[in-house]
Amino acid sequence: MNTVPLNREQVNKIVADNKIESLGKASIREVKKVINDVEKAFDFKFVRMEMGIPGLPTVKVGVDAQIQALKDGVSAIYPDIYGTLELKQETKRFVKNFLDVDIPEDSCVPVTGSMQGSFASFMTVTRMDEKKNKLLFIDPGFPVQKQQCRILGIETETFDVYQYRGEKLREKLESYLVKGDIAGIVYSSPNNPAWFCFNEEELQIIADVANKHDVVVIEDLAYFGMDFRKDISKPGIAPFQPTAAKWAKKYILMISGSKVFSYAGERIGVIVISPELYAWHTDYMKKYFAQDTFGRAIVYGTIYALSSGTSHSVQYGLTAVMKECNEGRYNMVEGIREYERKAKFMKDALVENGFEIVYDKDMNVPIADGFYFTFNYPGMTGEQTLNELVYYGISAISLDITGSDQQGLRACVSLVPNDMLPVFAERVKQFNIDHKK
Amino acid sequence: MNTVPLNREQVNKIVADNKIESLGKASIREVKKVINDVEKAFDFKFVRMEMGIPGLPTVKVGVDAQIQALKDGVSAIYPDIYGTLELKQETKRFVKNFLDVDIPEDSCVPVTGSMQGSFASFMTVTRMDEKKNKLLFIDPGFPVQKQQCRILGIETETFDVYQYRGEKLREKLESYLVKGDIAGIVYSSPNNPAWFCFNEEELQIIADVANKHDVVVIEDLAYFGMDFRKDISKPGIAPFQPTAAKWAKKYILMISGSKVFSYAGERIGVIVISPELYAWHTDYMKKYFAQDTFGRAIVYGTIYALSSGTSHSVQYGLTAVMKECNEGRYNMVEGIREYERKAKFMKDALVENGFEIVYDKDMNVPIADGFYFTFNYPGMTGEQTLNELVYYGISAISLDITGSDQQGLRACVSLVPNDMLPVFAERVKQFNIDHKK
Repeated sequence: MNTVPLNREQVNKIVADNKIESLGKASIREVKKVINDVEKAFDFKFVRMEMGIPGLPTVKVGVDAQIQALKDGVSAIYPDIYGTLELKQETKRFVKNFLDVDIPEDSCVPVTGSMQGSFASFMTVTRMDEKKNKLLFIDPGFPVQKQQCRILGIETETFDVYQYRGEKLREKLESYLVKGDIAGIVYSSPNNPAWFCFNEEELQIIADVANKHDVVVIEDLAYFGMDFRKDISKPGIAPFQPTAAKWAKKYILMISGSKVFSYAGERIGVIVISPELYAWHTDYMKKYFAQDTFGRAIVYGTIYALSSGTSHSVQYGLTAVMKECNEGRYNMVEGIREYERKAKFMKDALVENGFEIVYDKDMNVPIADGFYFTFNYPGMTGEQTLNELVYYGISAISLDITGSDQQGLRACVSLVPNDMLPVFAERVKQFNIDHKK
Repeated sequence: MNTVPLNREQVNKIVADNKIESLGKASIREVKKVINDVEKAFDFKFVRMEMGIPGLPTVKVGVDAQIQALKDGVSAIYPDIYGTLELKQETKRFVKNFLDVDIPEDSCVPVTGSMQGSFASFMTVTRMDEKKNKLLFIDPGFPVQKQQCRILGIETETFDVYQYRGEKLREKLESYLVKGDIAGIVYSSPNNPAWFCFNEEELQIIADVANKHDVVVIEDLAYFGMDFRKDISKPGIAPFQPTAAKWAKKYILMISGSKVFSYAGERIGVIVISPELYAWHTDYMKKYFAQDTFGRAIVYGTIYALSSGTSHSVQYGLTAVMKECNEGRYNMVEGIREYERKAKFMKDALVENGFEIVYDKDMNVPIADGFYFTFNYPGMTGEQTLNELVYYGISAISLDITGSDQQGLRACVSLVPNDMLPVFAERVKQFNIDHKK
């Protein structure tokens, strides 16, 4: 096996052969491809942190229920567009048990992954009011959500929230919403890529400003339960997953099955639409929809048109997993705590060897250890850090492609095997020896 | 049990309670809801023909393979956006074996049902050339495809092909394409709702006109293999499923798993993109896509944004079914011939009792018996026939909502149980006794 640093010229040639100017500007999939090529050329195993992919098996009770549903013949029957009754009911309970929010089961609609959830939300929210046709993204964020807007021809506004935490967020949001052309505010918490979490004060600010300007809050809960500083796993008992739904009038929550239940392969999630948003109707929506309320439009208009609903068998799978959580038999937080342990080890190794964590605090509180973290080497841009790290057998993505104004990299811990953790520490140490001034 | 005709006032009240002016103008789902209510109020079982839903179990080898894939853990792993290698390879073979068309495996991309296939196709085809932003539908057709365009803000042109079969089709298509604003021509063959099939001469005309004006042919093969006049089930042996792909340069074929393999519940289909279309690039597409060819744009741009690809386990299921067909172990035509037998019985009963088949011929050849047929009672509009038939315990949908200019109804045979066939014949007979002049 080769040792680090790898031969620079040879690595550079592979990058050039992939027609990539600099890895620090490359997309996730481009980085993946280059690292595959480098690993092959050097017969050398990287510590791979570029992909945000869950690395655990799906919760077993879910797979078992999905298999049983297939044996029962659901694969032949079109799923109802609005979802199976059982999944709607378990989602309603789940939202009450773990978010402490009361909603009717009609508000809960399965989607073909949160990817479809955001696509459907963006598409419907911007077609309700002729004047409100833009989306405001609180960045950094998941790049594909901006790609969804680009394809749909939806204009976006964005800002990096790094300098606007706490009460400062109110004025910043006001400065956009006051223009009157924003239909919805989009953010994820825990945040992809920076892993910060909005606290309750900030979530209430988002809701207040949105309510004032009659704007829809679109909250991406892709990393539900993964702020490991708080154990939200006990049904009906505080603490709960923090959410703007406690205060917002018009909101959509996106709950993904991919991360918390490791159900990424089957493309399953649910969206939760607030009753006030569900009942909202406008004259302008008739241009796009045969339905006369937002709720009916997103279900029978948008989601029907996107894929005729969500795969039938996996709805049974997700129902079973949620039921286990609701009844206290499965602890979803314990099921994914391995990510926390890995993140702590890796962040410690980095900090001990001269690196710094970029998004390091929620106001005055250190951020959680979890699925992602951000880091950088002092005196370098994020792009430079990534380009150098590759010679040391470590891959990640640059924050440049996530809407962040900060210099640094995003790392995802999930695909790093346990036996690579000491290897990671050694490589980071060598990097620091070679680069410290 | 009640006898026909049912009490008219009571039926009329249920229709009015559903806030429906006339069943002849109602959507499929509205008809379904009213008939549910009528069945319940009268404790009376209808011959239900309004929904186009497969009524057979999924091909077993597919379900077995899907279950095995779940046991092997695929549910945890994001599917590749462009589909599993095995499904791409089997689709390539399937297209060669049953359509007699050669394409590379890259051209074959799984989708979350043909619903996603058409959405993705419409969205991408109309974002390639600023001037070509409309779609031309050869009607009658599947109403939801127009709904997809409406939501996307895509303008459509349509005409009822009833009067334009054969060589007349060329001039009619020319009259639209000559304007230069059509990006794609959309049609299904076998046709939903009318069940006519374009013959090879007509498919070549569509391809010729499209080639002349550099327009994409979007062929919906939802009812693959279901023109039972020709047995296309022998791999590599004529006759083949007729397709414009034999002559068109830029085309997309949509092959649904829902009907021919009764796999509707899992939302699985494949689209086949011609190599010339796949490689097509324009400057204008940069407005919407980061990719520089149509093929990469529809896969990594559109399909990624719509749902991050297609559920993983069912890709294994469809692969297994296609492999069985490709290797001659499963006869897909025999698997669904029950629809033919039912259609023949029901059409005979109607014609014997004074009804007429509306779309009755492909040029000079009687149309096939299959999943759908169209019919009407002489001297009545389609709306009147439907409103009257409901008193006789028979439901269908009006052709008015399908883009057809003809008077009549669409019937789907799949949900009619065998033991209801004699009941259907009796009710039709009674209808004729009560209405003939």
